[in-house]
Amino acid sequence: MAQKGKTLDELFHDTLKDIYFAEKKILTTLPKMEKAAQAPELKKAFAKHETETEGHVTRLEKVFAAIDKKPQAKTCDAIVGITDEGAEIMKEYKGSPALDAGLLAAAQAVEHYEISRYGTLKTWAKELGLNDAVSLLEQTLNEEKNTDATLTAIAKSVVNKEAEAA
Amino acid sequence: MAQKGKTLDELFHDTLKDIYFAEKKILTTLPKMEKAAQAPELKKAFAKHETETEGHVTRLEKVFAAIDKKPQAKTCDAIVGITDEGAEIMKEYKGSPALDAGLLAAAQAVEHYEISRYGTLKTWAKELGLNDAVSLLEQTLNEEKNTDATLTAIAKSVVNKEAEAA
Repeated sequence: MAQKGKTLDELFHDTLKDIYFAEKKILTTLPKMEKAAQAPELKKAFAKHETETEGHVTRLEKVFAAIDKKPQAKTCDAIVGITDEGAEIMKEYKGSPALDAGLLAAAQAVEHYEISRYGTLKTWAKELGLNDAVSLLEQTLNEEKNTDATLTAIAKSVVNKEAEAA
Repeated sequence: MAQKGKTLDELFHDTLKDIYFAEKKILTTLPKMEKAAQAPELKKAFAKHETETEGHVTRLEKVFAAIDKKPQAKTCDAIVGITDEGAEIMKEYKGSPALDAGLLAAAQAVEHYEISRYGTLKTWAKELGLNDAVSLLEQTLNEEKNTDATLTAIAKSVVNKEAEAA
């Protein structure tokens, strides 16, 4: 190495630990959101995403293996902050007509965080020549984008119904 | 109101306070990221986005006015967590070849948070019949999306150059 300091492969590894923590945190949050949601299509979307998220954790473990590292989680302040906001919504909007709209907003903030992280990791994996990792990260990235699109569609329908009921 | 509890207009107002806090926090963070960045095109992108962010704050103040409220910030845990991660990157990767890649990842996490928030607020403003707010929120949403696309392009070129220099 011509330059001192941390390199891209270390940044890739650090960020992998960050998103591994995030996925595990999301796995503990989704059942609470499913339970809190009022609209059946929203409950169903959260349940489906929980199953997908289990697959994301498994894929991340394969990415760790691809760089000869053990799966390891490192506290991710961002996802802690984002899920804290979701918990606040569940508490403050409990039983209120705007609860589902708030849950959707919280879930979409989570999805966008993941979309940014997986997009970044995929770019780095490509540069580092980690072809198996690129493919694994891309599969999850696509699932996160699809989930976000599903939530957007539900958000439009849920918000309409709430406005009509008010 | 047929139902008890908080309604969509209250959720809109709460979320407006959250993103107002976030934009102000981002305004204090961007000069630090500009200073830390190594690649000239990245410095330039942060400087440009700082100017845009000032405009986003002004637009949010107009949205507050559109709902007859005074501009008010409410601590947004998500942006605190996201910017804390950025600060960690600046510290841990100072002087290292992967610094710019890390700064770009941090900035894209911020952009995605904002994209999710402005997308949500725009959907709600539409439903609430706040036409002026819809237009203001949409302008900012488009700028955030453009910034994210610019950062993606820079990320690809920066990561390439770092790999070549290593």
